[in-house]
Amino acid sequence: MDKREALLQAAVRSFNEKGFHATSLDDVAASMNVTKPTIYYYLGNKDEILFECVRRGLVSIREIIRSVEETGGTGYERFRALLLGYARIMTEDFGMCITRTADHELSPESRARFRALKREIDATIRRVVEEGIADGSIVPGDPRIMTFVATGALNWIARWYDPSGPMSAEEVAQSCVETILRGFRPGTIAMEGTKNADTGSI
Amino acid sequence: MDKREALLQAAVRSFNEKGFHATSLDDVAASMNVTKPTIYYYLGNKDEILFECVRRGLVSIREIIRSVEETGGTGYERFRALLLGYARIMTEDFGMCITRTADHELSPESRARFRALKREIDATIRRVVEEGIADGSIVPGDPRIMTFVATGALNWIARWYDPSGPMSAEEVAQSCVETILRGFRPGTIAMEGTKNADTGSI
Repeated sequence: MDKREALLQAAVRSFNEKGFHATSLDDVAASMNVTKPTIYYYLGNKDEILFECVRRGLVSIREIIRSVEETGGTGYERFRALLLGYARIMTEDFGMCITRTADHELSPESRARFRALKREIDATIRRVVEEGIADGSIVPGDPRIMTFVATGALNWIARWYDPSGPMSAEEVAQSCVETILRGFRPGTIAMEGTKNADTGSI
Repeated sequence: MDKREALLQAAVRSFNEKGFHATSLDDVAASMNVTKPTIYYYLGNKDEILFECVRRGLVSIREIIRSVEETGGTGYERFRALLLGYARIMTEDFGMCITRTADHELSPESRARFRALKREIDATIRRVVEEGIADGSIVPGDPRIMTFVATGALNWIARWYDPSGPMSAEEVAQSCVETILRGFRPGTIAMEGTKNADTGSI
C-alpha cells in the first residue's frame, strides 16, 4: 500500500469510529508517524478527506453495478448480484463511511457531489427493480420503496456489523441479502393489496 | 403544548436538520424567542437534550412493542404490528433523531443508556421473530439477521423520508412494512439453502 492509501485508511477508520467532528488530523498524523502537513500534502483538508472516503465507497458500488449490468440476466438475478456486492462493501471501511456520514458533515460543494453519486446509484438500482418487475422475476410493487427497503437494510450493516463478532463479513452479506430477497413468510406470498392475507400457510 | 415540549421540538428539529455539532442552543433559543438560560432551565445542556430526544423516540418504540405484546396473536401478526408502529415513529422527529444520532455524539454516560435501550428493543423484536419461527408463521432463518434487516430498512426511513414528498408518512410506513414482509419474489419462496432457486414462478 502506498503512503497516500495508508493515510486514507487511517483517516477513514477514525471517521468511522469517532465521527467526523471528533476526528483530529493531528491524531491521525501521529498514529501514522507523520506530520499534519504531510496529511494535507497527500490528502487535502479534513472535508476533502471525508469526501474522498465516501467517494471511494460510492465508486466501489458503482463498479459493482456496472459489472453486474454487463453480465446480464433477469432483473431478479441482477438485483441479487448487485445487493450482494453492495452488502460486501457495507462491511468495509469506505462503505461504512457512506452510511456513517451525514450530509451536513460535508461542505456544501462536497455534499452536492455526495448526493449526486448516491442519487445515481439509487436510480440504477431502481431501474433494475423495474426491469425485474417487467420481466416477471420480481414481485410487483413500488420500485422506489423496494429500493429504499433493500438498500436501507444493507446500509444499516455499516452501523451494526462488528468484524470481531461471530459472523464473517461474507456471511453477513449473504445472510442479509437472502433475508431481503426471501421476505419473512413461508409458503405463498401475499399479492399486492391482499393486506389481510396474514395467516401463514403452514 | 407546554413550554418544555415546544423547546424540545425546536431542538430535535435542529439536531435532525443540522446535526448535533452544528446545532447551536443560541439559535434554538432565538428561534423560540427565549434566552439560552431558559433552555438550560427546561432541558439541561446540549448532551442532555440530545439524549432526551433519542430517549423519547426509543420509549415510543418500547410502548408500541408493549401494546402489541398485550394484543397477542401469532409471531408474524405481532411482528407486523410492531414493524408498522416502528415505521411510523421513524417518520416523526424523535424517531428520526434515533437514526441520525451516532453513538459517539453522546456523552459516555448517555451513550451507555442509549445503547441499553436500543439493545432491549432489539432483543424484544428478535424474540417475536423467534416466536414466529417457532409457531410457523415466520419463515425459518437467523432471527438476529432478520431483525437487523427489518429494523435497518425501517431505520433508514429516517434518512430519506421527506414530509413534503409525494407519499404521506402513513403510506411510507405501510408500504415499507409490506415490502419487508413480502420479500421481493413472486410465487413460492425459496426454502433455506436453495440458493439457486432463483427463477421466478411467473
